[in-house]
Amino acid sequence: PKQSTVVLLPGDGVGPEVIAEAQRILELVAKIRAHKVSITFKTELIGGASIDAHGTALTEQALASCKAANAILLGAVGGPKWATGNPRPEQGLLALRKSLDLYANLRPCTFASDSLISHSPLKENIVKGVDFMMIRELVGGIYFGDRKEATEEDGFAYDTLPYSKAEVERVTRLAAALALQHEPHWPIHSIDKANVLASSRLWRKTVTEVIEKEYPQLKVDHHLVDSAAMFLVKNPRGLNGVILTENMFGDILSDEASVIPGSLAALGVYEPIHGSAPDIAGKGIANPVGTILSAAMLLRYSLDMEAEAVAVEDAVRKVLDGPDTAGYEFRTRDLGGEKTTKEMGDKILEVL
Amino acid sequence: PKQSTVVLLPGDGVGPEVIAEAQRILELVAKIRAHKVSITFKTELIGGASIDAHGTALTEQALASCKAANAILLGAVGGPKWATGNPRPEQGLLALRKSLDLYANLRPCTFASDSLISHSPLKENIVKGVDFMMIRELVGGIYFGDRKEATEEDGFAYDTLPYSKAEVERVTRLAAALALQHEPHWPIHSIDKANVLASSRLWRKTVTEVIEKEYPQLKVDHHLVDSAAMFLVKNPRGLNGVILTENMFGDILSDEASVIPGSLAALGVYEPIHGSAPDIAGKGIANPVGTILSAAMLLRYSLDMEAEAVAVEDAVRKVLDGPDTAGYEFRTRDLGGEKTTKEMGDKILEVL
Ligand SMILES: CC(C)[C@H](C(=O)O)[C@@H](O)C(=O)O
Ligand SMILES: CC(C)[C@H](C(=O)O)[C@@H](O)C(=O)O
Repeated sequence: PKQSTVVLLPGDGVGPEVIAEAQRILELVAKIRAHKVSITFKTELIGGASIDAHGTALTEQALASCKAANAILLGAVGGPKWATGNPRPEQGLLALRKSLDLYANLRPCTFASDSLISHSPLKENIVKGVDFMMIRELVGGIYFGDRKEATEEDGFAYDTLPYSKAEVERVTRLAAALALQHEPHWPIHSIDKANVLASSRLWRKTVTEVIEKEYPQLKVDHHLVDSAAMFLVKNPRGLNGVILTENMFGDILSDEASVIPGSLAALGVYEPIHGSAPDIAGKGIANPVGTILSAAMLLRYSLDMEAEAVAVEDAVRKVLDGPDTAGYEFRTRDLGGEKTTKEMGDKILEVL
Repeated sequence: PKQSTVVLLPGDGVGPEVIAEAQRILELVAKIRAHKVSITFKTELIGGASIDAHGTALTEQALASCKAANAILLGAVGGPKWATGNPRPEQGLLALRKSLDLYANLRPCTFASDSLISHSPLKENIVKGVDFMMIRELVGGIYFGDRKEATEEDGFAYDTLPYSKAEVERVTRLAAALALQHEPHWPIHSIDKANVLASSRLWRKTVTEVIEKEYPQLKVDHHLVDSAAMFLVKNPRGLNGVILTENMFGDILSDEASVIPGSLAALGVYEPIHGSAPDIAGKGIANPVGTILSAAMLLRYSLDMEAEAVAVEDAVRKVLDGPDTAGYEFRTRDLGGEKTTKEMGDKILEVL
């Protein structure tokens, strides 16, 4: 069997609770497929948990573990406890992305559980048939530009949003590769604010050039971020295909897209889309489904176990879809149910 | 009667068509209230239309007219024709905002026409009872910071997002003034990305200080922009009150909020929320309702004609709500009807 190391980064808030369930799923997959894979788990601290223990949001040693791993599964970072302090939990996550050069975050929005539609704020006729992959550039832009904190004296702060042509090119090529995997090929919808930002004009020009020169068989169009934010809820099917955008716009749009049922997972470091939810942390009621679907993507993309990924996704879908949809028997509280994090995990394990 | 000058800036795309209808409404109000007000209209070019005529997106003379006016009503700026050129249409609008120091854009989301709910992508139980005012800082942040265009040689661009304490203070005071107008007082929901941006940390600290020191009777809470983008469609009632945010986040969130029926107008320069819609420009089918509701806000805030503003809003609501809701008789195409821009204006005038 292939030896694989998976680093678990539970982090803060509900992170540890949801990671525990995802780990159980991965363990079961490894057990059933013992001839194919053997997974060694290693747990490291990140975020506020690491600040509390070591005074830094990510230690050199934790980073080294991540670098050596086949895949990394992250819970969540941040919380009110560390909100005004220094260092901040988020620095751990940003350092991880940058050090490992995880230059893209993939958020598919295709997993459509019919019964979840009843819990969507969007009407059924709006969300049916939505099928896109959002690609967010993850190691450039305003997250990593120079910045200056305001002082009591000057009361003045700034951040910088830099992009280089090379940074835009490589994430565009990734978008193109994903667009080509689809039959018929997916269109690419690139999002920017080219009517105001210089970085967005570079973005638009570079995306256009890469596609025209290297992928003439693909179609690309451009949307301004404000109108895309509207479009994403007004007519999300209109954005079916690959949605490609820069770091900050991607942060905003992918959270917005999470109201469409099915938009649940993330790639790079595998991270569920929800935050650390400090209000419900420790209560055992967080929904582990996002993290479990991230674990499925981990199987697919990092351990090359497509069939197993599909099996996990199917198990999740089955649990959410029934047979008890009337009473919503297998739902956590966020979806109108009463199940705990662990009961949810138990049921998915059982179906799997 | 009070002498008032209203500068009309039709701009590009559907701008001229929708402004024409709003002008007819204002003319009728002035005619009926001839003892109270006399409005002189002056039309000036802005955006692409001004670039075509004068090579600049806003002439000194047009700006001077705006400065001398009691109020300004804007159609829309921009379009594919000028997208890659220099100057750009948007520069006219940004210059106008900056020169007149229009430091806030107000987007109320309260005008709820029941029959419009059927055209919302959001479920009725989600949008019912939504009642907020979004305040977007309009003359600071990344719209006005230093930037560098990429060249063929360096392939490198950046934008800067600066904020000063004074800029945040004054828009916070405006938010507080609006919150106080409500009984019971509205809470203030401030939106930022303080876990990453230095400018957002200044924003959060300043908002908190101003409210605590100067308005201890008001409540303020803080949301990260990504989670606010999700919240705005998942549970918009949870943001009832004043939503206060910086320029770029406000651009994105107010367009997103436009999917909630009723969120239609803007203040400062009175601007409808829609863009220039070049695809339908010149066809006479654009929906003039946004611009007419902006004209109502103009009556309210710039001409001190509250009763007349309410009358215009009521007329719009009546036309949209019936009696022909079954056949959607008085709707433009975007709302599933077949009426033209002018027919829509005619009907609102008639009811008024
Ligand atoms: C925790 C935070 C720094 C992070 C981000 O903004 O990238 C999070 O919101 C995310 O989307 O992964
Ligand atoms: C036209 C453009 C510059 C403008 C903006 O981004 O401010 C528009 O989108 C708006 O919201 O008024």
